[in-house]
Amino acid sequence: MKIRYSQITITPGNPAKNYETCLAVARRAKAAGVNLLLLPEMSIPGYMIGDKWEENDFIDDCEYFANELAKEADENFSLIFGTVAFLESIIGKPVGGYDGRKAKVNVACIATNGSKQFRIKALLPNYREFEEPRHFFDQLSAMFHSKDLMPFQPSEICGVKFGVTICEDGWDDDYVFKPFDRLSDQGAEVLINISYSPFTAGKNQSRIRHFSAHASKLGKPVIYVNGLGLQNNGKTIFCFDGSSAVWNSKGELIAHSGMYTEEDVDFEYVDGNLTAINAPQLVQTTEIDDIHKTLIYGIRNYMAQSHLQRVVIGASGGVDSTLAAALYVEAIGKENVLLVNMPSRFNSKTTIGIAERLAHNLGCWYTSVPIQESAELTHRQIDGLKPTNANGDEITINLSSFNMENVQARDRGSRVLGAIASAWGAVFTNNGNKTETTVGYATLYGDVAGFLAAIGDLWKHTVYDLCRHINSKAGKELVPNEVLTLKPSAELSDNQAVDKGLGDPLIYPYHDRLFEAWQQWWNHASLADILQHYLDGDLAAYLNHGEETELTEDLIRSHFPDAKTFIADLERWYKLFKGMGIAKRIQAPPILAVTRRAYGFDYRESAIQPYFTRKYLEMKERIIGE
Amino acid sequence: MKIRYSQITITPGNPAKNYETCLAVARRAKAAGVNLLLLPEMSIPGYMIGDKWEENDFIDDCEYFANELAKEADENFSLIFGTVAFLESIIGKPVGGYDGRKAKVNVACIATNGSKQFRIKALLPNYREFEEPRHFFDQLSAMFHSKDLMPFQPSEICGVKFGVTICEDGWDDDYVFKPFDRLSDQGAEVLINISYSPFTAGKNQSRIRHFSAHASKLGKPVIYVNGLGLQNNGKTIFCFDGSSAVWNSKGELIAHSGMYTEEDVDFEYVDGNLTAINAPQLVQTTEIDDIHKTLIYGIRNYMAQSHLQRVVIGASGGVDSTLAAALYVEAIGKENVLLVNMPSRFNSKTTIGIAERLAHNLGCWYTSVPIQESAELTHRQIDGLKPTNANGDEITINLSSFNMENVQARDRGSRVLGAIASAWGAVFTNNGNKTETTVGYATLYGDVAGFLAAIGDLWKHTVYDLCRHINSKAGKELVPNEVLTLKPSAELSDNQAVDKGLGDPLIYPYHDRLFEAWQQWWNHASLADILQHYLDGDLAAYLNHGEETELTEDLIRSHFPDAKTFIADLERWYKLFKGMGIAKRIQAPPILAVTRRAYGFDYRESAIQPYFTRKYLEMKERIIGE
Repeated sequence: MKIRYSQITITPGNPAKNYETCLAVARRAKAAGVNLLLLPEMSIPGYMIGDKWEENDFIDDCEYFANELAKEADENFSLIFGTVAFLESIIGKPVGGYDGRKAKVNVACIATNGSKQFRIKALLPNYREFEEPRHFFDQLSAMFHSKDLMPFQPSEICGVKFGVTICEDGWDDDYVFKPFDRLSDQGAEVLINISYSPFTAGKNQSRIRHFSAHASKLGKPVIYVNGLGLQNNGKTIFCFDGSSAVWNSKGELIAHSGMYTEEDVDFEYVDGNLTAINAPQLVQTTEIDDIHKTLIYGIRNYMAQSHLQRVVIGASGGVDSTLAAALYVEAIGKENVLLVNMPSRFNSKTTIGIAERLAHNLGCWYTSVPIQESAELTHRQIDGLKPTNANGDEITINLSSFNMENVQARDRGSRVLGAIASAWGAVFTNNGNKTETTVGYATLYGDVAGFLAAIGDLWKHTVYDLCRHINSKAGKELVPNEVLTLKPSAELSDNQAVDKGLGDPLIYPYHDRLFEAWQQWWNHASLADILQHYLDGDLAAYLNHGEETELTEDLIRSHFPDAKTFIADLERWYKLFKGMGIAKRIQAPPILAVTRRAYGFDYRESAIQPYFTRKYLEMKERIIGE
Repeated sequence: MKIRYSQITITPGNPAKNYETCLAVARRAKAAGVNLLLLPEMSIPGYMIGDKWEENDFIDDCEYFANELAKEADENFSLIFGTVAFLESIIGKPVGGYDGRKAKVNVACIATNGSKQFRIKALLPNYREFEEPRHFFDQLSAMFHSKDLMPFQPSEICGVKFGVTICEDGWDDDYVFKPFDRLSDQGAEVLINISYSPFTAGKNQSRIRHFSAHASKLGKPVIYVNGLGLQNNGKTIFCFDGSSAVWNSKGELIAHSGMYTEEDVDFEYVDGNLTAINAPQLVQTTEIDDIHKTLIYGIRNYMAQSHLQRVVIGASGGVDSTLAAALYVEAIGKENVLLVNMPSRFNSKTTIGIAERLAHNLGCWYTSVPIQESAELTHRQIDGLKPTNANGDEITINLSSFNMENVQARDRGSRVLGAIASAWGAVFTNNGNKTETTVGYATLYGDVAGFLAAIGDLWKHTVYDLCRHINSKAGKELVPNEVLTLKPSAELSDNQAVDKGLGDPLIYPYHDRLFEAWQQWWNHASLADILQHYLDGDLAAYLNHGEETELTEDLIRSHFPDAKTFIADLERWYKLFKGMGIAKRIQAPPILAVTRRAYGFDYRESAIQPYFTRKYLEMKERIIGE
C-alpha cells in the first residue's frame, strides 16, 4: 500500500482556491499510484479566519468543496483531509451551538471509494492564539447529540486500520482523553495526525520528541502532516511551517519535510512496516536561522496576501530599522524598498552615515527628508496657543521639550512616511522590537505606526543576533557593522546623543530577560519572584532560564547596588508594561509571531491598572519600609 | 429571613480594592440585620482582565481576599459572592488545566458561620467578548477530578434551600444542562443568579422576560444580582449596568434596580414567599436614553480608570465630532474639554461656524489651528522627491490630490491634536461612527487616531438620534441644529464641498442597515441573501428587520435602478468591510460597546481577502453575466 502526504499551502478563508490546490495534489497522487493521500487539517477553509466561522454561507461552500474533493476517491485511491462541517451534515439532524448558531466541527474527512466518514477533533486548543471551542464542538459535545459517532474508531483502508487524529489530539498531556492511546487500543495499525500548526521557535524539536514518544510507546508508526501558509488573527500573524514528519514503530524519525516547502512524500506500508520512499530527512538548523526563514516567509506572504508590493522604511541608522531594511530587501527585492532618513537637529552624522551605507549595501532606494522645518512650524503654531471659552476666559498651551520629542516621532511616521508611502503606492513599516513594545518605549502615530511589525516579536538581543546571522549568511556586510556596537538611542533630544554614548534608558541585557520572564514564560514570573531572587543574589541565573546570556549577577549588582534602586527600576518598567504599553499595543500594527508568546491575540490584554500583590508589597515593606 | 442584594461597582484586576468594597457592604448588611447578602459574580477579581488569569500570584491574592471576606459570616449572617479559585483549593489536590497551567474555576462562594462552600459555574460563555473556557474549567470538567463536587445541590442557609447559579447558568437555552431546572428538582426554594453582565442595547427587556419565565415555570422566586463597572478586553470596552432584579414565584417582577447606581435592596423570605422591602421598581426607558447613559458612564469611568482628566477634540463642524463634544462635556465637564477646529482651504464657513457655535453652546474651550501651511510644506517636501540607489538610478515621488486628502487628515490627528493634547496634559478623541468604521472610511493616524472611540459602536442614524435626544433632554440647543440637516462630508477636497451639497459617498439610510445586516445580526446576512432580496423587491423590509426606518424600497430603487449598479455598490463596500476596513480596525482605538456586536474583541476579525461564495457568484453570473 502506497501512502503519500502532501505538505501544501493553505489560504485562509478561501475554500475555492484551497479546493483547486487539493484537487491538483489529489490527481497527481492518483497518477503516481498512491493508495492513500494525507492532507493537513483545515485544508479547505483555512484556519485563522476570526469570526468568519459564523457565516453559514461560507461553511456551505466549505462543505461543497469538501464533497467535491471527496469524489476523487476511487477503488484504488482514498484520501484523508481536514475541513469544517456543520454537525448536522454529519449526524443528519439540526444541532445548535452554545452561541445559538448552527454547531460546527473541525473534522478529518476520510474519503474512500463512494463513501465518506468524518472524525471529529476531540481536543480543541484554547490558549495562546487558539480558540477552537469558540467555534467548534469537540467530539464529546458532538456525541451528546448522536450515539452513532463512535469516537476513536480506526478507519479501514486497503485492509489497514488507520487511527486518524487532528492536531491537538496528538498533544494530549494535559487532557483527560488520550486519542492516540484509545485508537491504538481499538486496533489502529498506523497512527495519523493531520495538523495545521504554526511556527514557534523551538517547537519543532519538541514535536519530534513528542510524536516519537507516541510511536515508540504504542509500537506503531506515526505520520504527522502539517500545512504551510500565513494566517492571522488581526493583531498577530502566524507562519505555518510544515515540517511534516514520520516515525516508524520504534519511534525513529524516517522522514522530515523542510520548513516552508511544498512537498509530496511517499511511503510503502506492508505488514506493519512503514518505509519511506526517497523521503526528505531532518536537516539540523539553528533557532536564529529558523526565525530568519520565518520572518522572510512572513513578510513575503503577508505582502502578497495583502496585494502589496512596495515598502517605505524610516531608516534612522539604528539597529532595528537596519534589520527591518535587510529583511524586506531579502523578502521582496531591493527595487521595492525605499529607505528614508529623516534627520532633525538631534540626529548624528554617525547614524545618518549608517543609514546611507545600509542603503548602499542593500542596493535599495534611499532619500532624506529633514523634519526640522516641520517640527519648528508645529512649535510655532501650538506653543503659546490661547484657547478661549464663551466667557472670554483663556488658557495657554505650552509645548515642552519632551512634547517636542513626540512631535518629531509623529512627524516622521504620520507626516513623512505616510505621504511618501501613499505617493509611491507603498506602505510604511513598523520597526519596533519586542523589548520596546513591552514597555511602550515608542510614540503612538509615530514609530508605533506602520502596516506590519515584522520584528515586533524579537527581543533586542535577537535583533542583534539576527543582524550578525544575516551578515554571516551573506558572507559580506549587509548590516553595517558599526550599528552592532552603537549605543541604542532614539536621538530625539540632546540627552540621547549617541556620539556622547547617550541613548535608551533600557539596560537591554537585563531588561530583555526581565520582560521575557514576565511575558513569555509559560508560568509568568511575578514581581515577588523577581525581588526574592534579587535578594538571594541569583536573579541572573533565574532570568537566564538555563540559557547562557550576557546577563550576570555582577551586571545586575553594578546597576542596582541596593534594593531600593532595584525596586524603583522594577516598578518603573512594570507600570509601563501593564499601563502605557498596553494602551499603545491596542493601536499597534500586527506582529509577526515567532516566540511562544507574541503580543496581540496570542497574549491578550485588558487596559487596566497595574496591580501589586500583597506578597510583593509586604516583601517590599520589609526591605525598604515603603 | 432577611435577604439583601448589593449592586456594587467592581474594579477589574484589583482584588484588594474589591475586597474593601465588599467588606464595607458586608458590614453595612450585618448592621442592618441582614441574614443573607448576595453580591455579583467575580466580585473579588473583576472580570475582563485578559490573560492576567494566568498569573498565579494574582489568583493567590483573589483567594486570600475571598477567604477574608468569607470570615465576615457569623451565626446570623451568611453571604454569597462570586470569585475565582484554583480548582486545587476546592478539591484539595493539584489539577492541571488544558493549557498546562493550574486549573481555575469561576465560583460562587457560599460563606456561612465557620464554613465555606463553592459552586462552580456550569455554563461558560464563549461567544462575543466572552471566552471563559480559555481560563476556567466548567463544573463538568471539574467533576472529572473530584466526585465530591456534587453539582446542582442547593445550599441550605437559615433552613432555606437556595439554588445558586452564576450568570450564563441562567441562560441555558442553547446548552444541554439546565442548572435552574436541576437545582429546582433538587429542592431549591429560592433561585439565585449572581451575574456580571455588560450593557447591550435591548438586553434588559430580554433579561426580564427570560428570568421571569424561569420563575413562573419552576414556581420559585428568582433573585438576579448584577454588578456595575467598566471592563475592557483591550479593543472593546464594556459598561456593566447593574439592573439587578427579583421575580416572585409567579414570575412577577417585584424589584428592579437602576442602571449604573449602587444599591442595597432588601427582601423578607417567609414560607416560600419572597417580598420586597422598599425595593426600587423598573423605570421604563427608551433605548436611546439607555445608550446615552451608557456612553456617559463609559467615558467618565474609562477616563477615571486611566487617570485622565482632559480631552482635546478635533471639531470639524460635522455631526460625529459634534456629538462627541457634547458627550465629553457632559461626562467630564466643560473645563476639561478643548475643541480644535483645523481648517484647510477646503473647509466651509458653514462647518467652521457650527464648530464655533458648538463650543459656545457647551461652554468648553475652543481654538483654531489651520493646517494649510503644514499641508503645503509636506507637499513641497515630498512631491517631486527623487530617491536614488547605489547605481545612481532615480525614481520620482508624486503626491496626488487623493494623497493630499490623507495628508490633511494625518496632519490634523497626528500633528496638531497630538501636540496640543500632550502639551495640555490631555488625550485626543476618536470621533468615528460605526458606519465609517465598518468600511474604513477614515485615514489611519488621521481621524482613525484617538485614545477612545466613544461613538464607534453607533451607526450614523444613532448618531443623529442621540444628538436630538441630547438637545431634547437639555431642553435647549446644545448640538447646533444646523448640523442635523447638513450633508455629511469629510471636506478634504473640492469634491466634498458641503455648501454645494457634496459630501460622503455613503447613502446612510441604506448602508447603515446593510452593514448592520452583515456585521450585527446574529445570523449574518450573506451577499446572496442581500442580492436575492434586491431582486425580489423586498430588500428594505428585509434590512429593516422589523423596525421602521428611513429605508424604503423606493429609496433603494432610486439609487440602484438596475442589478448592475446595485451589485457594483454592494461589492465596493463589501470589499472595504472585509479588506481595508479590517486593516484599519486593527490599529484603531478601543470602542465603547453598546450594540450586540461591537468591533474589536467582540467581533473578531482576521485580515484576509474578501471571499465571494459560489452561490453569490452564480447568482451574479445569471443576472449580469459577469
